[in-house]
Amino acid sequence: MREIERKFLITSEAFKKEAYKRTRIAQGFLNTHPERTVRIRLKGDNGYITIKGKSNKSGLSRFEWEKQISLNEAKELLLLCERGIIEKTRYEVLVGDHIFEIDEFMGENKGLIMAEVELNSEGEVFTKPEWLGQEVTGDIRYYNSQLSLNPFKNWK
Amino acid sequence: MREIERKFLITSEAFKKEAYKRTRIAQGFLNTHPERTVRIRLKGDNGYITIKGKSNKSGLSRFEWEKQISLNEAKELLLLCERGIIEKTRYEVLVGDHIFEIDEFMGENKGLIMAEVELNSEGEVFTKPEWLGQEVTGDIRYYNSQLSLNPFKNWK
Repeated sequence: MREIERKFLITSEAFKKEAYKRTRIAQGFLNTHPERTVRIRLKGDNGYITIKGKSNKSGLSRFEWEKQISLNEAKELLLLCERGIIEKTRYEVLVGDHIFEIDEFMGENKGLIMAEVELNSEGEVFTKPEWLGQEVTGDIRYYNSQLSLNPFKNWK
Repeated sequence: MREIERKFLITSEAFKKEAYKRTRIAQGFLNTHPERTVRIRLKGDNGYITIKGKSNKSGLSRFEWEKQISLNEAKELLLLCERGIIEKTRYEVLVGDHIFEIDEFMGENKGLIMAEVELNSEGEVFTKPEWLGQEVTGDIRYYNSQLSLNPFKNWK
């Protein structure tokens, strides 16, 4: 399937009070090439393998394939991943009809907080909460695969 | 799990008369790094995703994780793979207590025929059929991931 997503920076931590769910995520990449990333993720008690393709021209839509795997399989596969395991806390916030997934990064990417909203079409309208900042959709530097290679703390 | 395998070149096509099964395989790689290959395979009517780690020192044993996926998923994922899709016919031959999987490559790797036998331990004894040639276990050039990058026809 193709996934349509828009991605934004976050300007304040006010979203935390509105979150209905909070989950710890650890993830690594078997491949960080932007045209074929292979991600291994531990999310709460579940494991996932996710493959993403190239973005379309607008940067809004990207092929994505995901399968749930066991936590143990995910842990074994995480050991094979390239250096630069990403750890983050994911907050889920309902704003109007849309769920915002907000990732607060730790470790080498501490200081970065980023929100994603999934849409059904590229033109779909959604409510922008006050804590939503600059849009970074399609900016490859903000792909998690690239954050694992060139973490936020090295950006300045 | 770790997989223990020995790999050999083949000296004649005599094995074809002994084969109890023959299957067409097409496969590509999302990652050809020898320490973390991610392979997408179409085998007969099935699809598979397989992740292999680094070999141990002897080159005999290698971490391997595999999941069956649908043929359609495999076809979609094959489109994301790096250049160098491998096509081959796999013959399965029973010799004594062991199954030999023999791959006759097509396309860019035409002329290469290679057998693999899976073992339960590194020292396990098995019968060597007359058509079995030079051992190439652990030789990275003969990894399918490397054959997709540097095919057999370019070797001479």
